[in-house]
Amino acid sequence: MTSDSILPATTRWYADRTLAARPSEVRKVFRAAQKPGIISFANGAPYLGQLPFAQLAADAARLMETQGTAALQYGASQGIPELRAHIVELMKLEGISAGPEQVIVTNGSQQALDVCARTLVNPGDVIFAEAPSYAGGMAVFTGYEAEIVHVDMDADGLIPEDLERKIAEVKAAGKTAKGLYTIPNFQNPGGVNLSAERRRAVGELCRGQDLLIFEDNPYGLLGFDGRTMPAIQPEFADITLYFGSFSKMIAPGLRLGWVLPPQAMYSVLLNTAETSTLNPSVFSQQLLTAYLDDPAWQETLAKYRGIYEEKFTTLVDALTEAMPEGTSWNRPTGGFYLWVTLPEGVDAEALVHEAIDHGVVYVPGTAFYTDGQGSNEMRLSFCLPPLEDIRKGAALLGTLFREAAAGR
Amino acid sequence: MTSDSILPATTRWYADRTLAARPSEVRKVFRAAQKPGIISFANGAPYLGQLPFAQLAADAARLMETQGTAALQYGASQGIPELRAHIVELMKLEGISAGPEQVIVTNGSQQALDVCARTLVNPGDVIFAEAPSYAGGMAVFTGYEAEIVHVDMDADGLIPEDLERKIAEVKAAGKTAKGLYTIPNFQNPGGVNLSAERRRAVGELCRGQDLLIFEDNPYGLLGFDGRTMPAIQPEFADITLYFGSFSKMIAPGLRLGWVLPPQAMYSVLLNTAETSTLNPSVFSQQLLTAYLDDPAWQETLAKYRGIYEEKFTTLVDALTEAMPEGTSWNRPTGGFYLWVTLPEGVDAEALVHEAIDHGVVYVPGTAFYTDGQGSNEMRLSFCLPPLEDIRKGAALLGTLFREAAAGR
Repeated sequence: MTSDSILPATTRWYADRTLAARPSEVRKVFRAAQKPGIISFANGAPYLGQLPFAQLAADAARLMETQGTAALQYGASQGIPELRAHIVELMKLEGISAGPEQVIVTNGSQQALDVCARTLVNPGDVIFAEAPSYAGGMAVFTGYEAEIVHVDMDADGLIPEDLERKIAEVKAAGKTAKGLYTIPNFQNPGGVNLSAERRRAVGELCRGQDLLIFEDNPYGLLGFDGRTMPAIQPEFADITLYFGSFSKMIAPGLRLGWVLPPQAMYSVLLNTAETSTLNPSVFSQQLLTAYLDDPAWQETLAKYRGIYEEKFTTLVDALTEAMPEGTSWNRPTGGFYLWVTLPEGVDAEALVHEAIDHGVVYVPGTAFYTDGQGSNEMRLSFCLPPLEDIRKGAALLGTLFREAAAGR
Repeated sequence: MTSDSILPATTRWYADRTLAARPSEVRKVFRAAQKPGIISFANGAPYLGQLPFAQLAADAARLMETQGTAALQYGASQGIPELRAHIVELMKLEGISAGPEQVIVTNGSQQALDVCARTLVNPGDVIFAEAPSYAGGMAVFTGYEAEIVHVDMDADGLIPEDLERKIAEVKAAGKTAKGLYTIPNFQNPGGVNLSAERRRAVGELCRGQDLLIFEDNPYGLLGFDGRTMPAIQPEFADITLYFGSFSKMIAPGLRLGWVLPPQAMYSVLLNTAETSTLNPSVFSQQLLTAYLDDPAWQETLAKYRGIYEEKFTTLVDALTEAMPEGTSWNRPTGGFYLWVTLPEGVDAEALVHEAIDHGVVYVPGTAFYTDGQGSNEMRLSFCLPPLEDIRKGAALLGTLFREAAAGR
C-alpha cells in the first residue's frame, strides 16, 4: 500500500513528513478487533481483573477530596516528585542508579519515545531495530522521517554481529546511523530476551560507533518467574535513553510512563515534552503514587505473572493441537506475546480479514517490519483474553490456517 | 539569547529542528514562580476553589468501582463517544455544527496544537500569529521549524489589512504562507476579542490566500457576562482547525482538550495523535463526562465568571493606584489576562528577576513575540491569586516599576 491511501485530496496541506510516514497496518486490525464478539489476540493490553478497584476507588476519592486543587491544576512538566521517587526504586530492580531529578514522567512511554525521537531524529537518520519490532515505536521514528534498518534476532535477542554489519552498510552508504531502538526484555513482538553478554556487546558497539540506545522496557517485571535482567542503561548511561511504562505492569488507563535520558539531554527533552502536552495529569500521578505506596501492589503483580503464564501455556497447548504442520513458535518466559511462524506460503496479512469474519483477530507479521518481511508470521497477545476464549480462538485460527495451508 | 544556551555539549545528537527551536522564556519565569511565597501573576491557571470536589470524588470512586476495567484500559484514539457528544454540544454555543465523529480528544488542547502542527507544517512554512500571541502555541509551530510572522492587533483583534499586507510580503519573499494561528476570544495575552466583522474578513482572506486557520479557543465561555461570540469555524469549516480546552473552564488536571479539523484531515491527524500518545486517559474522560452530565456545571462556570470579574476589577483598581505614570492596559471583558504596557524604556524582561526577589512574578512581554518586541510590556494573569494577593502583588509591582521609571 502507498502512503496516498490514507491521505485525502488536500495533500497539498500536509507536511512532507506526513506524506513520508507509512500508516500502521496495525490500526486497521485494532479497529476491527473492537467489534463485539471478536476474540482478540491483537491488542497488547493487560488483563485488569486483579486490580484492587475498591482500593483505587477509595484512593481516587480521598485524593480528590483532600488534594483536589493540586490534582486538578497544572503540574510540573517532569512529573510529581513522589512518583519519580517510586520510578527510581523500580529501576533499581534492573540495576539502574538514578535520582528522581533525572526522570521525566510522560503520557505513557509512547509519548516518551515520541518526545525523544522528535528531539533527536533528523530526516534520513537511520534507526536500527530488531526484526521484527514494535510497530508503534517504529511509527514514531518513521514519523520524523527516520529510516528503520532491521537487525536479525535469534533466541538470545538481536545479533550483535548483524548490527555491526548493518551499521557498516549504513555508514558506507553515507547515511547517519543515529541509534538503536531495542526492547531487551520479552521483546515485542518476538518474546525473546537479549542475553546479558549481548547487552554488553551491543552497548560497546553503539558506544564505539557513536549510536544512541533507545532501551524500551515495558515488560521487564513481567517474567513468569519474576526474575529481572540488568538493564543496558547502567553501563551505558551516557548514550542510553531508558523508557519505562506502567501500562503493562499496572494499567494503561493511567497513561503514565517515563524516560531516563543521558543527563546532558534532560533539559532539552523536558522542553519538548512541555511543548507537546505541558505536563502529565497530576491526578493520575497521585493515584498511581498511592497505589505504589502500598507494597501490596507487588503481590498483585506476582498474581498477574501466574495468570499470564497460565494463559500462555493454554495458548501454546491449544495451538499445538490446532495449527497445521509446519507452524512454529518460540517459548517466551514472560511478557505479552507469542510470535508464530506459519507454513511457508501462508499469508497472514491476507487472511486476517477472513479471521475477523470467523470471530478471531491477530496482528499480521508484516506490521512489525518496515521492509515487507513477515507475511507468514503473526503476533498473538495472550494476556487479555479469558482462558476459554484463548482455547476457542486458537481452534478458530487452526481451522483457518489448516485450510489455507492445504489450499496454498 | 541564543538557542545554544539550553543545549548541552552533545549538540551533535540533536535534530536540526531542536537546534532551530528557541526555548520559551516563559519556562524560566514559571519555574521561579513555583517558589513558595511568591505572588504569581505568571501562570495562566484557573482558580479551582469552586469545584464540587465531594461530587468529583464520588464520581471518581463510582467510575473506578463500576467501570474500572474500561477506565484503566487502553481506549479509542479519538476519545470516548460520550465525551465527544458533550464537546459537540459545547461547540453549538459558538455556532458550530459538527458530529462527535469529527472530534479528536487530546491530552489538553496543547497536544491538539502539537499534533496538527506536526502533521501540517514543513520547515520554513510561515504561520501568522497575533502580536503578541500565546508563547506555548508559537513554540509548537517553531518547534516544527515554522517561522512566525506577527500581525498587528487593536481593540477589535487582529487587523485584517495588516494580515493581508504580511501575507503579500511573505509570498513575495517566496515563502509558503501556511496558516493563521489566532485566539479570537479573550486573546492570550492581549485579552481582546476579534470582532464579528473581522472574523468574516479574516476567514475570507485566508480562504482567498489559501491559508489554514488554527482557531484556538480556550477562553470562549469565560466572558464576564457569559456571552459567547460565533466561532470562525462555521463559515470556514473546510480550512479551519478549531481547538477547544477544558483546562480553563473546568480544570487543567484532567488534561483534556480537542480539535475539530476539516473533515479531509481527520484520519491523518488521528494517526499522528495515536502515534504520539496512543489515546487520552479513559478514566479522565469518564470523570469529565460525569461532571458534564450534571447541568450544575454551568452554574459553577457562572460563579467563576463572577469571581474572575471581581479579581480583574481588583487588579485594575490596585494597578491604577500603584503603577507609575505612563503605564497603560486594556479592559478585557473576560478571560484570564491583563496586558500591561509600561512607560517607554522600562525593561520588563530585565526586571522580572528583581520582581521575583520582591515576591511577585509576571510574564515579560517578550515571551509573546518571536521578533524581540515587548520589552516594556507584561502579562498579568488574574484568575488564580486570592484578592489579597492581587492587591499586594500590584503594590509590589508598583514600587518596582515606579523606581525603574524614575531611574531610567
